[in-house]
Parts: sequence; C-alpha cells; structure tokens
Amino acid sequence: MDALPKLEVCLSPALLHLFDTNGAVVVIIDVFRATSTIVAALHSGAQAVIPVASVEECIQLGRSVPNSITGGERNGAIIPGLQHGNSPLEYPASFIAGKKLVLTTTNGTKLLHMVEGAAEIITGSFLNLSSVCEFLLERKLPVVLGCAAWKDRVNLEDMLFAGAVVQAIGQYFSVDCDSARAARQLYELAKPDLLGFLKDSSHYKRLSAFGLEKDLQYCTTLDLHPLVPILKGRELVVAR
Amino acid sequence: MDALPKLEVCLSPALLHLFDTNGAVVVIIDVFRATSTIVAALHSGAQAVIPVASVEECIQLGRSVPNSITGGERNGAIIPGLQHGNSPLEYPASFIAGKKLVLTTTNGTKLLHMVEGAAEIITGSFLNLSSVCEFLLERKLPVVLGCAAWKDRVNLEDMLFAGAVVQAIGQYFSVDCDSARAARQLYELAKPDLLGFLKDSSHYKRLSAFGLEKDLQYCTTLDLHPLVPILKGRELVVAR
Repeated sequence: MDALPKLEVCLSPALLHLFDTNGAVVVIIDVFRATSTIVAALHSGAQAVIPVASVEECIQLGRSVPNSITGGERNGAIIPGLQHGNSPLEYPASFIAGKKLVLTTTNGTKLLHMVEGAAEIITGSFLNLSSVCEFLLERKLPVVLGCAAWKDRVNLEDMLFAGAVVQAIGQYFSVDCDSARAARQLYELAKPDLLGFLKDSSHYKRLSAFGLEKDLQYCTTLDLHPLVPILKGRELVVAR
Repeated sequence: MDALPKLEVCLSPALLHLFDTNGAVVVIIDVFRATSTIVAALHSGAQAVIPVASVEECIQLGRSVPNSITGGERNGAIIPGLQHGNSPLEYPASFIAGKKLVLTTTNGTKLLHMVEGAAEIITGSFLNLSSVCEFLLERKLPVVLGCAAWKDRVNLEDMLFAGAVVQAIGQYFSVDCDSARAARQLYELAKPDLLGFLKDSSHYKRLSAFGLEKDLQYCTTLDLHPLVPILKGRELVVAR
C-alpha cells in the first residue's frame, strides 16, 4: 500500500513557514468573506477573479483588464475608487457573468502570495466544501489547509472550515498535526449550528456590527456553489 | 464599573508579536513537560529553577551555581553532560529540596526569553491550574496565555491548558480572542477525560513512543502542586 499523503492545517499566515508547500495542494481559506465571494462570483459566471492586495493595484488593474469590475471593502463600506463591495451577495449572474472581478482582500491575498512551490493553489469556503474535498481526494497529493486568519490572528471561521475538510476526508490522508485535530474537534462541535457557534467569534461580531448578518449566514451555507476556484497565473478560474 | 482587563491566548511563539505583553501577566505553558517539571521541582522544595535554552549554558551554569543540579532530555533520554532528565517524576523532595535546578528546555525557554515588558512572567500547567487562576484573578492585569508549542507548531496540550484557564476565569476578563474561544471549547470537550483526549495528539504519540506514559498521566493531573512559579531575574521561584 502506498503511504497516504500528508494533510496539515496552518492556522495563520505567520505560521506558513513551518509547512512544506512544495508539490502540495494549498487551500486558501478566508471564509468571511473573500473565498466565499470568489466562489460565488465564479459560480455566477465570472470569467475569473483576480485577487490583489492593495487598493491601488485594484484600481490600476480595473483600468487595464478589459471587461473587469473592481471590488473591495474596508470596514463594511465600498472603498473609494472601487466600484463594488466584497459581499458574495453582490455578484449575481446578471451582473458578473462573463466579466473579470478584480478583488482586493487583505488576509486571503496575502496568504496566497506567500505560498511557494505548490502543485496547485485553490480556494475553499463552506459554499464549496464538498467540491474542495473531492478535488483533494482526486489529486492524491499532500495538502496544506491555509487559514487566512485576521491580520495573522487565528480565527474561528477559517479553522472550522479546515476542520470540516479534515472531518470529511482526513481518513484518506496521514494527519499528524494538532491544528488539524483541534479544527476537526471544533467543527464537530459547531456543525449542528455553524452560524450560532460563530456568533461568539471576533469576525462575526465585527462584521455584524456593520449590518452584514446576511453575508455571514450566506458564508456558512454548505455547498451552494459546487465548484473549485484554482489559481492560473494571477487569476482564479473554475477548476471543476 | 472599571473595564475588565483583557485576556488573550497566543498559540505559538511565532505569533507572540501580535500580542501586547507590556504590563501584562504572561503565563508560559509547556505542559509536556517543562512547566509541569518546574512546578513539581519547586513543590518538592527546590530553591529555584533556572530555565536555559542550550545544553552548553546548562552545563556552564551547573558548574557556576552552587548547590545546583542540571537536567534536560532530548527524545526521552538524558542529554550527555547533564545529570538528570526532565521528567516531573524525577524530582522528589529527598533529591531536590534546597537545591537549584538548571533545566534545559527548548520550547518553553524560547518563549519565556521572547516576552518583553511583562509585569510578571509565571508558568502554568495542569498541576497548578487553580493556583495560576487565583494568581491571575488577584493581579487584575491583562493576561497573555502563551503556549510554548512544539518548534512553533500549535499543540493540543498547551491549548487545552489555556482553555482550562479561560473556562475557569474568563468571565472576569474581557475575552475577544478566537484562540481563547477555541481553546475553551476544546477544553470543555476534553475535560471529562483529558488524558484520553490527548492520546490523539502529536506530543502524546511522540513521548509515549519513548515509554513516557507515566509522565503524560502525571502532567494531566489537576492541582497536585498548588503553587505559582514566577520569574525573578533568571530564576523561577515560588510566588505563592
């Protein structure tokens, strides 16, 4: 029998150096809300999502990329100079189909740009949990589940998504990683009422204070968008 | 009413820069086994424990500090050049009373030396859980629970101890920290059978492979040594 590939969970970009991403599939996780918005936009027919770190880059790319839309928020409000926010609810097919979304996100993009030597980089959220799991099972490569966290601080929602993946497919991997164990245990606790569990979390409190409860509810819905965003060059496109 | 002091959990030394330790009480947590051994030795009447990072420093201090004993292990065996291991079971009163223990530990000492500007640095383990909690309640200062982790990797046992503190006294602090929330939830899950829960953890597997199950059982026993080791200069002594 072949040895099972390794599956590990990295709880913060500040810990990424401890993990070997060479030849691995790295899953970028930014549940509230970047990786939820990315999969929602692609499922609505966006041609690609281009994640960028800075507002300046977002504005610049919005000018140079044909048929593009710029999106980004800080503290729950659209950033001056950009066209739209980063709520997954803002990108219906009627609006985004066939276009490219240039999206500025802080935590998710930072992590994505830090990853080196990965076989593939994909994005995960509860909205595409099962698709991500199927993708990882098919690849049979080592997996690093990378939580985008919040300014390097460990957060519950990304950890819970990592735990959901470990619970679903951990048995097909070699899991000797306490972060993965902790994440799985927490997900099992939270699973019956994911949104309720997350009400006591830093990010939920922050975003609901901006009136974004609907977004949070949406981002904790399972498998609404059954596809996998994968990084090709600088663009996230549909892998499956 | 005065605002409650903040309580936060830092899951790895590699995340310590995210926390403000100025004026805070920092609790160093290295359950398997440094902070368990430290409190056991002090409870057995050791005059002080001097934690050092390197074997060379340990040997050197062992020579220069009167009435001292050197201790340290790597991979479950006493380090050549030192006199004893770092099992908490190896330091009964008959052996250690009145002496100074120069102890080399990797993860715990590293974290301890990284902390800057703290009001107090103390050490915590399940063996002195309640004493640590009482100490923190009396001080009424911000608290950072610092997990020593394993070569910067988050580990379950240190996280569980942090969770035990949050569960016990979190209500008297302002806790807006997802690591603290995750730790508390995990501790509540693990509490009925702490050792059983930890059997599926990296450190348990590693240490039990060296035949150290007795140590692990000991280190998960609550409140056997009701005192608080506190750092004074380079020495850990009994605070209460």
